[in-house]
Amino acid sequence: MVRRTDTRQRMLDTAADLFQTQGYHATGLTQLTTAGGAPKGSLYFHFPGGKEQLAAEAVRLSSERTGTLLEAILGDAPDPATGIDRTIDALAGFLTASDFQRGCPIATVALDAAAASDPIREACVDGYSSWHGILTGYLAGQGLSGERADELATIVLASIEGGLLLARTRRDLAPLRAVATHLHATLEREFS
Amino acid sequence: MVRRTDTRQRMLDTAADLFQTQGYHATGLTQLTTAGGAPKGSLYFHFPGGKEQLAAEAVRLSSERTGTLLEAILGDAPDPATGIDRTIDALAGFLTASDFQRGCPIATVALDAAAASDPIREACVDGYSSWHGILTGYLAGQGLSGERADELATIVLASIEGGLLLARTRRDLAPLRAVATHLHATLEREFS
Repeated sequence: MVRRTDTRQRMLDTAADLFQTQGYHATGLTQLTTAGGAPKGSLYFHFPGGKEQLAAEAVRLSSERTGTLLEAILGDAPDPATGIDRTIDALAGFLTASDFQRGCPIATVALDAAAASDPIREACVDGYSSWHGILTGYLAGQGLSGERADELATIVLASIEGGLLLARTRRDLAPLRAVATHLHATLEREFS
Repeated sequence: MVRRTDTRQRMLDTAADLFQTQGYHATGLTQLTTAGGAPKGSLYFHFPGGKEQLAAEAVRLSSERTGTLLEAILGDAPDPATGIDRTIDALAGFLTASDFQRGCPIATVALDAAAASDPIREACVDGYSSWHGILTGYLAGQGLSGERADELATIVLASIEGGLLLARTRRDLAPLRAVATHLHATLEREFS
């Protein structure tokens, strides 16, 4: 018999994927349970707050995984410009490997559900804040003032988010590549 | 009696607003007709392709209006840095006036519906391309090479899109303001 924690985790994994690719409202309860192989009706057993709770937890899971990846990439990079290049390369790889379905893991839900649900909005805000915090900490660790690191982290995050949105919609990496080139030059200038 | 074209236009206006604020899937057929004061069932009379056709046309309408505004702002600006400042000020005004409901008019639909519908995706791609074209033409007219104007237009568009996404989700203009400061400096450097 499958343990309760396994089923719950599988439902979360499935939800994170469905919310990333198609958003909150396009994803139905049946799809959320059956796509993960869980019995119909088990959603409320594992997530008493229903789809809204599942979405908030899925956004938190996706945010954490992306944050872990970001920390690993930046930690291995010889300099900030290379670190951001490699981060964008990884995101570009997810886009092309998924036939342009997987852009930012939380942006679709942030736009299509956060305005109407406080728990989902808080999860999205926390996700973006955690990535912003990782970038700020990294840039400050490379010698920038806290204030400048914070500003630059916002620029990096915003332009990557916009680049992912445009690349996904156009099914073409060019906008993301243009963002990468610009951020590379911006970071080289900042740290020269 | 209300003329057919009036009803059709009102449905399009309503749809453009609903799709901007809540996306494609959260917007139901009943809401699309009744919110605009149209009789129920009139959607298929005016839009034989149903909700998908209405969404594609609404995205085109929103894109055109935003493009017209962008052209007017840039045309009046004394220099590119000021032009982009004023563009972002206008977008920030829409965000705050709508209690952070109205960010980019097409981003929500681009993320939550474009992957599954070719007509909607084409409308989104055309919308982004038209804004990109306006920015490119303007920057080239200010003296940049076509290639550099194209690149820089992508940077401007991507970072504004990302700034709007973050600002809307956080209900805080700070990310958009950070993008504005960065783009201002980028454009001043480019045209100095």
